[in-house]
Amino acid sequence: MDGNTAKPLILVTNDDGIFAKGIRSLTEVMRELGDVYVVAPDKPQSGMGHAVTINGILRLQEVDYMEGVKAFACSGTPVDCVKLAIYQIMHRKPDLLVSGINHGANSSINVIYSGTMSAAVEGAVENIPSAGFSLLDFRADADFSAAKRVARTIATNILEKGLTEGSCLNVNIPVSGPIKGIKVCRQAKAFWADAFEKRTDPSGKPYFWLTGEFKNLDKGEDTDEWALANGYASVVPVHYDLTAHHAIATLNSWNYGEFEI
Amino acid sequence: MDGNTAKPLILVTNDDGIFAKGIRSLTEVMRELGDVYVVAPDKPQSGMGHAVTINGILRLQEVDYMEGVKAFACSGTPVDCVKLAIYQIMHRKPDLLVSGINHGANSSINVIYSGTMSAAVEGAVENIPSAGFSLLDFRADADFSAAKRVARTIATNILEKGLTEGSCLNVNIPVSGPIKGIKVCRQAKAFWADAFEKRTDPSGKPYFWLTGEFKNLDKGEDTDEWALANGYASVVPVHYDLTAHHAIATLNSWNYGEFEI
Repeated sequence: MDGNTAKPLILVTNDDGIFAKGIRSLTEVMRELGDVYVVAPDKPQSGMGHAVTINGILRLQEVDYMEGVKAFACSGTPVDCVKLAIYQIMHRKPDLLVSGINHGANSSINVIYSGTMSAAVEGAVENIPSAGFSLLDFRADADFSAAKRVARTIATNILEKGLTEGSCLNVNIPVSGPIKGIKVCRQAKAFWADAFEKRTDPSGKPYFWLTGEFKNLDKGEDTDEWALANGYASVVPVHYDLTAHHAIATLNSWNYGEFEI
Repeated sequence: MDGNTAKPLILVTNDDGIFAKGIRSLTEVMRELGDVYVVAPDKPQSGMGHAVTINGILRLQEVDYMEGVKAFACSGTPVDCVKLAIYQIMHRKPDLLVSGINHGANSSINVIYSGTMSAAVEGAVENIPSAGFSLLDFRADADFSAAKRVARTIATNILEKGLTEGSCLNVNIPVSGPIKGIKVCRQAKAFWADAFEKRTDPSGKPYFWLTGEFKNLDKGEDTDEWALANGYASVVPVHYDLTAHHAIATLNSWNYGEFEI
């Protein structure tokens, strides 16, 4: 981008809420690359996946945030924020949508639970070049300096080259030691071995907290988990065509009885 | 299944809530195929996508539901219901997980917003043969008779033959006229042209309702939208590997500057 062209329009969102350190860090980087709008949840919305508010109302409040940045806190989910930003606030699609920087990993299976990544996927659905960024440190005061440099590198590439249509990027950044490089990866096949902790409330009634342990059985060196465990930032291109194309032939061999065609 | 083998264990859930007609209809069918547990939200949870409750507590209440069926109402999302069912209630994985029958379509892009389908995807993540069923009629008193016959056909096939590992099924059932057959499809590339209706509350403050129009630009005759528009029930195999494998080569050609490897 040279001085003669209009600056790119950039939308920043997240799922940790507008007052998290991660989104402030991401906004600081994006402010140097373009004109920035921040539209983010007014409270933490981690684990909201692709939830969208269809049976309730949404609130939107402009807030003082950072010099040169228009910012709005939204009562809804990360996906709600993207929709409101485009259709109610900006009235046009941005040139780039970035989400994060998330406090905590969104690698492998976490992509489907993550509000941060769902905001980026919603951007892809809207045909906006989009990326979600996550640091493998969930602490509120985590050090985002390396993640900011990765975000700048990725955002600059996207603004220059665009993304394959219908895809967005899931970028995760490790924490231990200097980053060895950026690796383009596939999503590792991992899962959460869930458990619940049962407790009793003051009135004697039971309630449950989700607990669980992350399990990665996928040792592939082309996976995001391998990259992160070996000191690299991981970049996984993500799309929203969930069709398991390889399963279609088997299903065509089934017996559909009265519904046979 | 003959009388000498144990009956299959079947988990039924949905996103419209445990007292919807659609899940009652699905339970009636499943009761004839196996031993049934119903674990479903205690209130409508449409549009919750893959949301999971990680920053709050969950409640679980056994309810009188249907003869021969154990049923629990859960305060959380459809994905929470699946996790609680497996790890807190049944203490084993069921042989089949079915979700729905949803009041309204979950074809094409709706798969990513749908709590009904996210419950089935969570089943796939847990390596449980799973399917979500949706009727193209969102009315509370919709006629589920044809959808029940489709659900029985699909469930019987799954119990006999299993599913490709890591996949589940997204089954949609049309409403107009007799069903011509069942078609195995890919997810159509469609989207919602969103808009918001701005209103003012009694105290003078603005709020927003999401509105929007479904747009299908994908005319492929191998898509779920084509099948449904032409009188067929659609079956799309769905998986949770969101990697856009076809985009990896392009990303490997980018300039990663200081992070080059």
